[in-house]
Amino acid sequence: MKREECEMLRAKALSYYEKAGIKLTEEEKRTIEIADFGLNDIEKVGLQSVVYINTERCCAKEMVCFPHQTCPEHRHPPLQNGYEGKEETFRVRMGTCYLYVEGERTKEPAANPPEGYEDTYTVFHEIVLHEGEQYTLLPDTKHWFQAGEEGAVVSEFSTHCYDEYDIFTDKRINRIPTIS
Amino acid sequence: MKREECEMLRAKALSYYEKAGIKLTEEEKRTIEIADFGLNDIEKVGLQSVVYINTERCCAKEMVCFPHQTCPEHRHPPLQNGYEGKEETFRVRMGTCYLYVEGERTKEPAANPPEGYEDTYTVFHEIVLHEGEQYTLLPDTKHWFQAGEEGAVVSEFSTHCYDEYDIFTDKRINRIPTIS
Repeated sequence: MKREECEMLRAKALSYYEKAGIKLTEEEKRTIEIADFGLNDIEKVGLQSVVYINTERCCAKEMVCFPHQTCPEHRHPPLQNGYEGKEETFRVRMGTCYLYVEGERTKEPAANPPEGYEDTYTVFHEIVLHEGEQYTLLPDTKHWFQAGEEGAVVSEFSTHCYDEYDIFTDKRINRIPTIS
Repeated sequence: MKREECEMLRAKALSYYEKAGIKLTEEEKRTIEIADFGLNDIEKVGLQSVVYINTERCCAKEMVCFPHQTCPEHRHPPLQNGYEGKEETFRVRMGTCYLYVEGERTKEPAANPPEGYEDTYTVFHEIVLHEGEQYTLLPDTKHWFQAGEEGAVVSEFSTHCYDEYDIFTDKRINRIPTIS
């Protein structure tokens, strides 16, 4: 991603944090993580986030999803260092988040996988999270999520986050963004 | 504490969550924890909180401190079950929080221990947290905090929370509230 596109997306993400009443430091505002997952199609598949803390024992993030933007299907596996995999709770601060997890396929879901990527989505049990609602995912559970039409700001409370070891269903994905 | 006093304090706490733009479910609103630490002097020494999640591995809370209200000095010790003690990060969402931890005594601190309880406060290294600022406490570190004149809403991101094993400097304190 080009630096100027990244800066434009940071400004856009910031407007969602502000709408949700989330206060960030100047340093946090400058370093909002813009992840296009290497697909170069960020308005469709992407995620913006600020990592508040990520120690060996716990992690907290504040994520922004733009309207209808999808965070692609992935899971947090156990690791060879003995880590049992990331447990995470999503709590919606603003907007609506459609979360899909393993389990019975929801008939008439509110959201669909992003167009052109359908074959890399395999779980369709829908959890609808409105403002103030939350859901906890156990380690190694496949999941993906998409914001509703007004976008969403979602807090994540979790054990240590090793983004680099996430396993995505779409093998073209590269989790760690590069800025050119 | 009498049930009606508890309900009045819940309504008051709710007004601070609302001022901070924090969305809660109806169930969370009904069950805001009102802790007077058994001292029956809650406007001076007390804490209001909603526990979002407290699994074996991690915990997140949203706390309200009324103007100049103090959360009394305590620490989170290692436990006999092998737990290394609670690590916690405080992040201020609204207002100002004056946090006191072990270390060099701050000259001319912005806050003082609550009147009449001075002999149960022993750490005076001041950390001032404005909106959007945060601080991480390692396990077993003595600390206390007090809100500024507009009160404060503070998120806590931590490892598992065993409130019942917290060690307070004031031995009169009983952490688990009783409602009569």
